[in-house]
Amino acid sequence: MSGVFYGVGLGPGAPDLMTLRAAKLISEARVIAYPSLEGGDSFARSIAAEHIRDGIQEIRLDIPMTVAREPAQAAYDKGAAEISAVLETGQDVVCLCEGDPFFYGSFMYLFARVSKRFETVVVPGVTSVTACAAVSASPLAARNERVTILPGPLPEEELRHRIEGAESVAVMKVGRHLPKIRAVIDELGLLAQATYVERASLPDQVVCPLAEAPDSAPYFSMILLTKGADPWL
Amino acid sequence: MSGVFYGVGLGPGAPDLMTLRAAKLISEARVIAYPSLEGGDSFARSIAAEHIRDGIQEIRLDIPMTVAREPAQAAYDKGAAEISAVLETGQDVVCLCEGDPFFYGSFMYLFARVSKRFETVVVPGVTSVTACAAVSASPLAARNERVTILPGPLPEEELRHRIEGAESVAVMKVGRHLPKIRAVIDELGLLAQATYVERASLPDQVVCPLAEAPDSAPYFSMILLTKGADPWL
Repeated sequence: MSGVFYGVGLGPGAPDLMTLRAAKLISEARVIAYPSLEGGDSFARSIAAEHIRDGIQEIRLDIPMTVAREPAQAAYDKGAAEISAVLETGQDVVCLCEGDPFFYGSFMYLFARVSKRFETVVVPGVTSVTACAAVSASPLAARNERVTILPGPLPEEELRHRIEGAESVAVMKVGRHLPKIRAVIDELGLLAQATYVERASLPDQVVCPLAEAPDSAPYFSMILLTKGADPWL
Repeated sequence: MSGVFYGVGLGPGAPDLMTLRAAKLISEARVIAYPSLEGGDSFARSIAAEHIRDGIQEIRLDIPMTVAREPAQAAYDKGAAEISAVLETGQDVVCLCEGDPFFYGSFMYLFARVSKRFETVVVPGVTSVTACAAVSASPLAARNERVTILPGPLPEEELRHRIEGAESVAVMKVGRHLPKIRAVIDELGLLAQATYVERASLPDQVVCPLAEAPDSAPYFSMILLTKGADPWL
């Protein structure tokens, strides 16, 4: 019997925004895996830290942040091979995933490599989208409203096309793309209803109108376009 | 000092998919509030049941399911008045919300009525979108992919317009609209990549290809259109 590969969502960053199921799986794990920026700390591991038992096996995936894809592919290949080797012995592996494993997470690259050979179970987590909505008091959608989720690195023309005529919009991975995204939103006359959120739920969280946001944003930042709290009913 | 109004997301239905923060707030609450279908049980209360202490005050909002809006508005007005009366005494009120409070939840109607007068704190929860993705092994989005969330009751033409050219799509609140949505997806040639999920994470959960789904679906059902698990990297 092979082990089970768990992809466990940890939520947006505050440790108590992980689910009861995630906390239990992590605290019982004998082998965990997690991504980290090459040479840096692992945000995922820091969220889960209080539940990780001492002395267990840790598979750390150092993911290079390069424009070329091959180095990252090689890192995921290597990580998947290490994880598979553990699963073959019958031991489970719990993979720590920021946010939700299937929502813009690097877990998907492991899932694509491991799930065909081994039983894989995904535990959903709170995404940064609803976390940002919560901390900025921005209701996302009610009744028959639509929600559009866009990555900030999309080209300017595509962002304009997708935001125009949309209802609630969340722009993920804002980072250095902030000036471009803000210009698009301003041209569409929507700046007044746009909120900027950085590191939602963490102690150094920032929430402000997009008009007042700094030009240089970290990777973990988001822009929300919502109508605010109408008394819909 | 007035009390604090908490809107607490409970996740999609499995009790252990609520967050640690939600479980703590509920277990410490002296007053809770929750919606229920008129004359029926409260799904929200059933998710939270094991954390609710005996003998606390419970404010139950019986929401009539009518086409006319006025009866529901009157029910939210009445509930908001009861909640406000408790908050005025300095006592906190914990409102139980299926999924996430700001994501198609009835909490928003209370938020619109209560948050101007009283401090209101929202605790995000796991949404049905990522829960359905998890149970159906359907990765939602990676890299620069877009996600579109659509309510099933939208008119057929609008659904067609929004699904055509989209990437990952989640159609919420499928219910009796299933035949209409399936016809649109079939016409667009996307039936093979569409998954139907009913009551995700609950014991009576159903996951199947949309082509095999029954014509009559419950309100808590969803259709996911995703590309599947490509080895993107």
